[in-house]
Amino acid sequence: MKVARVVEYHKPLQLQEAPEPQIEGPLDVIVKIGAAGVCRTDIHILEGQWESKSGVTLPYTIGHENAGWIHKLGDAVTGLKVGDKVILHPLVTCGLCRACRFGDDVHCENSAFPGINADGGYAEYLKTGARSVIKLDDSLEPADVAALADAGLTAYHAAAKAAKILRPGNFCICIGAGGLGHIGIQVMKAISAATLIVIDQNADALKLAKELGADHVIQSGEDDSFVKQVKDLTGGKGAEAVIDFVCEGGSMKTGVQMLRQAGNYYVVGYGENLNIPTIDVISTEINFIGNLVGSYNDLQELMILAAQGKVTLHTSKYKLDDFQQAIDDLSAGKVRGRAILVP
Amino acid sequence: MKVARVVEYHKPLQLQEAPEPQIEGPLDVIVKIGAAGVCRTDIHILEGQWESKSGVTLPYTIGHENAGWIHKLGDAVTGLKVGDKVILHPLVTCGLCRACRFGDDVHCENSAFPGINADGGYAEYLKTGARSVIKLDDSLEPADVAALADAGLTAYHAAAKAAKILRPGNFCICIGAGGLGHIGIQVMKAISAATLIVIDQNADALKLAKELGADHVIQSGEDDSFVKQVKDLTGGKGAEAVIDFVCEGGSMKTGVQMLRQAGNYYVVGYGENLNIPTIDVISTEINFIGNLVGSYNDLQELMILAAQGKVTLHTSKYKLDDFQQAIDDLSAGKVRGRAILVP
Amino acid sequence: MKVARVVEYHKPLQLQEAPEPQIEGPLDVIVKIGAAGVCRTDIHILEGQWESKSGVTLPYTIGHENAGWIHKLGDAVTGLKVGDKVILHPLVTCGLCRACRFGDDVHCENSAFPGINADGGYAEYLKTGARSVIKLDDSLEPADVAALADAGLTAYHAAAKAAKILRPGNFCICIGAGGLGHIGIQVMKAISAATLIVIDQNADALKLAKELGADHVIQSGEDDSFVKQVKDLTGGKGAEAVIDFVCEGGSMKTGVQMLRQAGNYYVVGYGENLNIPTIDVISTEINFIGNLVGSYNDLQELMILAAQGKVTLHTSKYKLDDFQQAIDDLSAGKVRGRAILVP
Amino acid sequence: MKVARVVEYHKPLQLQEAPEPQIEGPLDVIVKIGAAGVCRTDIHILEGQWESKSGVTLPYTIGHENAGWIHKLGDAVTGLKVGDKVILHPLVTCGLCRACRFGDDVHCENSAFPGINADGGYAEYLKTGARSVIKLDDSLEPADVAALADAGLTAYHAAAKAAKILRPGNFCICIGAGGLGHIGIQVMKAISAATLIVIDQNADALKLAKELGADHVIQSGEDDSFVKQVKDLTGGKGAEAVIDFVCEGGSMKTGVQMLRQAGNYYVVGYGENLNIPTIDVISTEINFIGNLVGSYNDLQELMILAAQGKVTLHTSKYKLDDFQQAIDDLSAGKVRGRAILVP
Repeated sequence: MKVARVVEYHKPLQLQEAPEPQIEGPLDVIVKIGAAGVCRTDIHILEGQWESKSGVTLPYTIGHENAGWIHKLGDAVTGLKVGDKVILHPLVTCGLCRACRFGDDVHCENSAFPGINADGGYAEYLKTGARSVIKLDDSLEPADVAALADAGLTAYHAAAKAAKILRPGNFCICIGAGGLGHIGIQVMKAISAATLIVIDQNADALKLAKELGADHVIQSGEDDSFVKQVKDLTGGKGAEAVIDFVCEGGSMKTGVQMLRQAGNYYVVGYGENLNIPTIDVISTEINFIGNLVGSYNDLQELMILAAQGKVTLHTSKYKLDDFQQAIDDLSAGKVRGRAILVP
Repeated sequence: MKVARVVEYHKPLQLQEAPEPQIEGPLDVIVKIGAAGVCRTDIHILEGQWESKSGVTLPYTIGHENAGWIHKLGDAVTGLKVGDKVILHPLVTCGLCRACRFGDDVHCENSAFPGINADGGYAEYLKTGARSVIKLDDSLEPADVAALADAGLTAYHAAAKAAKILRPGNFCICIGAGGLGHIGIQVMKAISAATLIVIDQNADALKLAKELGADHVIQSGEDDSFVKQVKDLTGGKGAEAVIDFVCEGGSMKTGVQMLRQAGNYYVVGYGENLNIPTIDVISTEINFIGNLVGSYNDLQELMILAAQGKVTLHTSKYKLDDFQQAIDDLSAGKVRGRAILVP
Repeated sequence: MKVARVVEYHKPLQLQEAPEPQIEGPLDVIVKIGAAGVCRTDIHILEGQWESKSGVTLPYTIGHENAGWIHKLGDAVTGLKVGDKVILHPLVTCGLCRACRFGDDVHCENSAFPGINADGGYAEYLKTGARSVIKLDDSLEPADVAALADAGLTAYHAAAKAAKILRPGNFCICIGAGGLGHIGIQVMKAISAATLIVIDQNADALKLAKELGADHVIQSGEDDSFVKQVKDLTGGKGAEAVIDFVCEGGSMKTGVQMLRQAGNYYVVGYGENLNIPTIDVISTEINFIGNLVGSYNDLQELMILAAQGKVTLHTSKYKLDDFQQAIDDLSAGKVRGRAILVP
Repeated sequence: MKVARVVEYHKPLQLQEAPEPQIEGPLDVIVKIGAAGVCRTDIHILEGQWESKSGVTLPYTIGHENAGWIHKLGDAVTGLKVGDKVILHPLVTCGLCRACRFGDDVHCENSAFPGINADGGYAEYLKTGARSVIKLDDSLEPADVAALADAGLTAYHAAAKAAKILRPGNFCICIGAGGLGHIGIQVMKAISAATLIVIDQNADALKLAKELGADHVIQSGEDDSFVKQVKDLTGGKGAEAVIDFVCEGGSMKTGVQMLRQAGNYYVVGYGENLNIPTIDVISTEINFIGNLVGSYNDLQELMILAAQGKVTLHTSKYKLDDFQQAIDDLSAGKVRGRAILVP
């Protein structure tokens, strides 16, 4: 089958022929890829940033946001049949460790992460496990939702955590209305009555945020005047929750200034350091909450919101053969919404 | 009455005569001080570290850990009578704002903090409000518990938060077995079945920790070998909770290394910066939880544990006139347990 | 001033002249009534059902859903001024007991309940306490919201409890779309993404429910075929939450049949017995959750939803002098939405 | 192999020869039984009470509290080896449904329950699934802990739920200090600082309760004077939590009288109806919480408490051949602690 592979770090992906993945264990599942999301992490992998963390042997196939159709099933798999439309939770998990049993798949003690440390979805077929498969509603197609499998799931996870503590009249700030942020906004509006303030440098992103239901949008710029605007909107007190989808370029410094006493700061993006005097942490009694990709149950819930039309994703489709164009466009900031590769 | 006052920053306290505080509002309460805790924050105040934060006008009386007997009561105060033995929640709160109504006294929008931004308890009498008074059990005396009013309450608050997420078999690390830490240890053993690992540089502190119920004690030193010891104790995974009563001298750097994926790091001490790459925060999905002094209800619960003998405090008594000796001893690290001033 | 009073149980209310309430304590507040809701409980009071519970001495003035304008203020009241538009939390609470401090006003250990065990709002003026007053948003008038003070607050309280455990794709059944139910529906849609199934005997009530956002409406009737309809909608499993605003006429028997394993049954209405074999409780591991009127903070949140237009109330206005007409109409089931008396 | 089987309802069990269970699926596990608990439910099965619920075909082997050693393993089982000492979670679960993924094994949508609706542990060997096996600590033997697998797990589950809401100074009442109750008492003391009041008709049971750490023990009798004693102990207010391990013979009627406003009533035992006017439920805002057997993670935690010596079980050993004696003794109330069968 055709695959787009990392052959060497700091070099472009290469389109190659590779053998189709095979059923080896009784719970294995082979999926025919319908679409694979193209993510900034894919670029970071090519840059070698994940080399030591993933420990993967080159060459290997990336692509960690995958949806498609069931192609083959291990002997012990139940509840699925060939041809079923599915989206894949990004991890392959054991289901036996304490984390899995608490529904916290991401911290499974025996997981694989196709596209990161195993062959991923820039390919015609992908091997995953029975525990990672979610059947799609009739109204959804793989290409519509593939990019929700990781980016969307991360946004859902963070927004759902924040929504748990937010009550009517509370304020939630979303920093960043891009790939993750524009999902987070839709999720937050669907599951909470909090007043949502969205901050972005980009006027178009804010326009979209407003269309998606943001109560207030504020453009950030060179100076910190947006901090004052937020303070004014929140009676001088700041927001109960800040969800930072950026966490670079100084977003946390101003982000914390907009956080209310006893508030929660959700760290979703990454890049810069979380760096703050402990006296500021304790005197305001604020919390910093780490966020990784969500659980399988989270993804089920996100698929329900998608099927209900409460969360929609803007996608730009590329053929698998055109992977380089997709990556170039993403690097150049030319992708509207989320790029996906279709084999 | 006699008071020990800050007359100028960077100078010693002075013993002066001052008028007794008077009932001015219907909910005012005047307490005859039985004991006032001497806290490191008192030294920081003299050093001017709180000058801009408190905004107080000199001279003023410090002392923010107070217990004693009811001396005078405002017209509208109910449920208290002159002579009652009491401990005081450190803040004077409004009871009307949303924070107060949620039991979160510390974030009251209209509070005063005697000993910080109003006259405190290094005195014969102190003015507080009806909402701040807790009657003591017959078995407790003001001098026994005064230092629980702030230091103990902070330790209780952090330990109770941690206990909420800890289940049998989980590990909790306490960094620091000093003033706050030795209370935190007792609280944690009283309200949780988590396995408690206590880390301190001081062998005597660890000996006390062991007596107070710590399951494991580990001495920290120049190198980081204690991190490995903790990893070994926790199956290589680290602890579900780290309560850092120190947060200076590099405690957080090694502290985070001992934290398990998805774990909670409780910031109680202060001094250094919380400084960590966001990629480490999100890839392990850890949280940093700020902690300030506890609520009135927390203090009630701590007094119950004290009355039940589950939490005891080592105190070194000084006469109010000997305040300088107490401060000098504290500065020199010569105080065993907690110093208190008795008028 | 004019008041409508209970002079004897089992007899009609009488319109009388009574002295205006006076400020007696420093935290007292006198409110000029803008509107008082007429509630089925008022009829029950006249029937003597509350005689032994309230222990009130006749004659006294009923009316426990009140909004209006500040008329007079005790000396120690802050943050309010004469003329402010306000709605009143139905209880007068102490702010000092453990329940008050946890935000659980309803279980205050030293409360009064104007209109139940003290003079209420079928009058020109009402005495309450500073802790019970919420200022209204400019966009709201006392007559618009008075009936939210108790009926609406109870519905909000129950719906907010249920929303806490409901996730996208979960089902919530509301039994009854009348006075409380139609508020509960709006609240649930505002704060949750759960799929809402509303059941009522009355086709008009269901029409309103649908307009207010119910995802499914089902008319209940003589037979239990609606239970099967709910089972079909929920994949044979029933709903994660049932909020029963009725709890009489057999609603609980069929209600429990529609509850999923491990589900929560919110008891809001009253009349019949909760009567179920314990083997059914434990084998399905279901919970029955009692619900009373909400807290002050709940009422604040409901006022925010009202100001945002997310919760609206249908009211039928009567002059205070026409109280008998209002009560007769309510008894006869002729009131659309909620009746209010305007002095 | 030897098995003790139900051959007909309302007749004694029979000792028979049956084929050993075989590995059929890749995740099957065969356990050599070390001990099987004898439970009152076993008697109820013989009485036919479970006939319609379990739908099992006779003859079949009962015994749902099992521990032993790994005998055979399916191909896909990891982390276990023949000879490992293990205790078994009572259900065989799928690991794929939403309930399993939330750690709520008991509500698995595709479970089997050996000893209830499949062949159980009154036998030399038992078939279960890889998800149901917990390795025992070196310090524990199958015979020590078998009866914790269901009775103990149920008690743990209920006590852990209650402990979550109990704070120092709160009261917890345990009704019944028998098989489940004496575990619940130990669990509650290990994980909570609540004040524990134990009520039983039997003076010996109360003596044991006191030894196990109960703060107060009260003998119940013909009259309801014990209710008054509890009221006196709790300042007239009742307990924040009542855990009723009995739920028959009128225990709930007096149990509710001892429950505080806004308190939680944990239904663990079964027999009588939960029957209470809804007006009493809503006016006191109490909750009734159903309890079934705990989760796999619960059982892990209980095994940790057992290994730490915080929970111990009194057992009376019988040979498998003497099953009738064990059942007779249990029926006659002659078993001290818990009876177990050892093949």
